[in-house]
Amino acid sequence: MSSGSFSFELPDWVSEAVAARPSDMSDVEERMRFVLGLASRHVASGTGGPFAAAVFDALSHELIAVGVNLVVPSSSPVAHAEVVAFSFAGQQRGNFDLGAGGPTELVTSTEPCAMCLGAVHWSGISRLVIAARDEDARASGFDEGNKPEGWEQAFAGNGIEVVRDVLRSHGADVLRTYAEGGGEIYNAGGTGLDA
Amino acid sequence: MSSGSFSFELPDWVSEAVAARPSDMSDVEERMRFVLGLASRHVASGTGGPFAAAVFDALSHELIAVGVNLVVPSSSPVAHAEVVAFSFAGQQRGNFDLGAGGPTELVTSTEPCAMCLGAVHWSGISRLVIAARDEDARASGFDEGNKPEGWEQAFAGNGIEVVRDVLRSHGADVLRTYAEGGGEIYNAGGTGLDA
Repeated sequence: MSSGSFSFELPDWVSEAVAARPSDMSDVEERMRFVLGLASRHVASGTGGPFAAAVFDALSHELIAVGVNLVVPSSSPVAHAEVVAFSFAGQQRGNFDLGAGGPTELVTSTEPCAMCLGAVHWSGISRLVIAARDEDARASGFDEGNKPEGWEQAFAGNGIEVVRDVLRSHGADVLRTYAEGGGEIYNAGGTGLDA
Repeated sequence: MSSGSFSFELPDWVSEAVAARPSDMSDVEERMRFVLGLASRHVASGTGGPFAAAVFDALSHELIAVGVNLVVPSSSPVAHAEVVAFSFAGQQRGNFDLGAGGPTELVTSTEPCAMCLGAVHWSGISRLVIAARDEDARASGFDEGNKPEGWEQAFAGNGIEVVRDVLRSHGADVLRTYAEGGGEIYNAGGTGLDA
């Protein structure tokens, strides 16, 4: 029986990548370029799957926390980039509600899977910014899970703005490069690849 | 900026509760009674919300890992009981695919929310056992998120058996007792209570 403590550990290179980020990330493409750089470096470093996300202050555009997909290295089926980023962001803010200290934004390299859309619902963020689309992920062989119809409209009704296609082709390239390069493909329960 | 390590820490009383579990949990109601006991004790101890879950070996019925809702104490919007249980179970098995070492089962005190249904999809479990229904949670004021239509059928198609209403009224009682007792109600982003 497992008990006590479970940790998400970011790869060592992350702190260096974070320290080297642009000083001005007021442009949304700049924020996405940073996130896609994390996804690419995660792949190139062999530290996990081709997914990254970051939480920013939605007004000042300051970086609050980053996440990368840690499913394989942490042996956790839930350690998607968004789940990891939300956990670090809550730790940083000292509050599970990421909107409690002012509006926040999630910038993610690929449209969130079914689980991570649920996580967005709970997170308290005000804006969701996405590069690669669901169909880009599926075209590279990744499963996205069973998403509710009309989730974008539901988010809009809950005050969460969705911004798509920010550096979409760059995002799709990261996925394709990983898949074509023979990156580890994990497949829980016969349900396909995990995005 | 937050970086490095993020941990889920189970409350101190959990190891004692786990050690005191029945030696024979081959009966599904016995497994659910154990899980509902964790949810009740979590509330009584003031260590978090009224939700608990556990992963069992689906053949031997041995306990692999437990989880309780740690959203408030861990300041993480994703630290639902199921997410916590899956993470500890992966750590215990040394594999993100909880089905890799033989079939496993999740026993949970309340029907999983939208995020946790997604987590079930990725987990690799073969059976999902539920006490309180979605409508019991909503009747006590808890939000369950935006679930896809027909998720049970989709799980069946992926080889995940869903068993409902196991000690349902006991499960609903745990939720009602918490809500009526003035337990902390958290509400991220104005989207309602978090189940």
